[in-house]
Amino acid sequence: MNIKITGTGSYVPTEVVTNLDFANHKFLNEDGSNFNATNDVIAEKFVEITGIRERRYVSENLVNSDIGFIAAKNAIENANIDPETLDYIIFAHNYGDIRANTIQSDTVPSLATRVKYLLQIKNPKCVAYDILFGCPGWIEGVIQAQAYIKAGMAKKCLVIGSETLSRVVDKHDRDSMIYSDGAGAAVIEATTAEGGIIAHESATYSFEEAKYLYFGNSFNKEEDENVRYIKMYGRKIYEFALNNVPKAMATCLDQSGFQIEDVKKILIHQANEKMDEAIINRFYKLYKKDAPKDVMPMCIHKLGNSSVATVPTLYDLILKNQLENQTIEKGDVIIFASVGAGMNINAIVYQS
Amino acid sequence: MNIKITGTGSYVPTEVVTNLDFANHKFLNEDGSNFNATNDVIAEKFVEITGIRERRYVSENLVNSDIGFIAAKNAIENANIDPETLDYIIFAHNYGDIRANTIQSDTVPSLATRVKYLLQIKNPKCVAYDILFGCPGWIEGVIQAQAYIKAGMAKKCLVIGSETLSRVVDKHDRDSMIYSDGAGAAVIEATTAEGGIIAHESATYSFEEAKYLYFGNSFNKEEDENVRYIKMYGRKIYEFALNNVPKAMATCLDQSGFQIEDVKKILIHQANEKMDEAIINRFYKLYKKDAPKDVMPMCIHKLGNSSVATVPTLYDLILKNQLENQTIEKGDVIIFASVGAGMNINAIVYQS
Repeated sequence: MNIKITGTGSYVPTEVVTNLDFANHKFLNEDGSNFNATNDVIAEKFVEITGIRERRYVSENLVNSDIGFIAAKNAIENANIDPETLDYIIFAHNYGDIRANTIQSDTVPSLATRVKYLLQIKNPKCVAYDILFGCPGWIEGVIQAQAYIKAGMAKKCLVIGSETLSRVVDKHDRDSMIYSDGAGAAVIEATTAEGGIIAHESATYSFEEAKYLYFGNSFNKEEDENVRYIKMYGRKIYEFALNNVPKAMATCLDQSGFQIEDVKKILIHQANEKMDEAIINRFYKLYKKDAPKDVMPMCIHKLGNSSVATVPTLYDLILKNQLENQTIEKGDVIIFASVGAGMNINAIVYQS
Repeated sequence: MNIKITGTGSYVPTEVVTNLDFANHKFLNEDGSNFNATNDVIAEKFVEITGIRERRYVSENLVNSDIGFIAAKNAIENANIDPETLDYIIFAHNYGDIRANTIQSDTVPSLATRVKYLLQIKNPKCVAYDILFGCPGWIEGVIQAQAYIKAGMAKKCLVIGSETLSRVVDKHDRDSMIYSDGAGAAVIEATTAEGGIIAHESATYSFEEAKYLYFGNSFNKEEDENVRYIKMYGRKIYEFALNNVPKAMATCLDQSGFQIEDVKKILIHQANEKMDEAIINRFYKLYKKDAPKDVMPMCIHKLGNSSVATVPTLYDLILKNQLENQTIEKGDVIIFASVGAGMNINAIVYQS
């Protein structure tokens, strides 16, 4: 028995927000002092490092579970399965449903339950729950689906990664330009077909790293201190990722039995283009190789960092020929990899 | 190989809140109209139905992950394991960390990561994540731990259920008297010892039931509509639970191979004493039996409904001889069962 992704879906929100749209934001330093650069210069440096020129925000009438539902519906249609046959719906997110212009996270019932409700699935044996695991949540959900299938507890699972980071950004923080909204989903099935999940790797580094991403006050000290936003220590995350993600990917690849030459694509979480390039280069260096051209498909330029949604969205766009010059063929060996709040790292070696 | 609970821990918050403490609350109906009874009469009826005389609230300086940590530490000490050998930390909750007198849920990093940090565990292969599954979250976490162990992905897991419902109650809603704070935890291990998890059952009913528990506005219509609280349709939940929980427990028991006569204790989620009694009576009726005296240990009178914390706390109190007239001996067959937001139901047949 193998475990394969049999269908994918995604939802790319409709509101395009360009770097120019931040031109009137008053960016501040962490201590509240003025930032010593014009917004033009900030935006220029920002693009250089992150690669992000645009990001997407959901429209005001939508919440996280709404877009998770759309991605889920697409994945189910793509897999061509009866949704009533699903054993699990696993919804990875980090902030729940937050309505536009409010600050509370709504997580009861779980977002997975909301999706199940919207899909109009009646079968009570389809168990719906949410996981919180930082940006690596969707990959971790796939690893959990794998566990249920291996343990004989499931045959078909739907794994959703969906987030609306636009609802938790501090507009006085330059990092707000990184975050985006989006949803991706996949159906995971036990199958007799060849390939599928070959190996996985998962880790939580918290001893020193627990608060690299956190919930903190606005850099504008005049704001209500009881209102908090997504915050990060970018430099620390960068160094952490470079030191640990390539090793995790290598451990996973070695465990899979495949060689570095077998790897056709690496679908890595898109938080920062320069960081991703450095990770991939260091990964190939572990095998004394240079990273092949086009091995790492990128969607960050137009979609920003949509947290748990990024990897499944990227995969869906490639499979559906919506990402230029990028294809994945049957039999191709690919690596999914992610790093984020926790700090969590995970990777899957997967054969299409 | 069997899968057993090798250690338990709990934290019972220090602030005792009696029904008398609600004497000055202005209780309203859902439509905002005045409630046609004095608080004395409300409290009297409330005790009659729910059995709750007291509940516990955490002190102002604590948040959910703090008390989850205390319960976790106790469970680890009780299991007498090196925390560095844990493969998973699974933290079940529903509202994250909410500081006293604020309304935002803080869930980044995950509460499991916070506990791992507080436990000072260095091993990155100890994967820490949160699950949201309503009140049945802790039992579901145990089922997930079982999946990892069965799939060969883990040998030792820590499962925490911790919640601070006092931070999300609407003081104008009589139901606020039900909710309590607390934390429970258990270490789950692969073992050659006899017994352990024999069978499990898990279900999500969302087609009509998704919004039986929800996040809603205060019954006081003058309050800010952007502030929401835990809300429920008690009557619907009562009927739903009575119709579905006994059947789920019976399915689980039948699957285990044990007979109804083998069952020594039923540790059921404590949300309402009358409801729990009705569930147990109906469960035994499925086997044409009467429920034996003392088969269902109760802690609701003094601890209220502490959501995910209730079942592990109840189990821990019994094992440590802190619940009058209740003991569990080696070899005893017990049933864990829970029902809550989702609506989710689960059960485990377990041999001590």
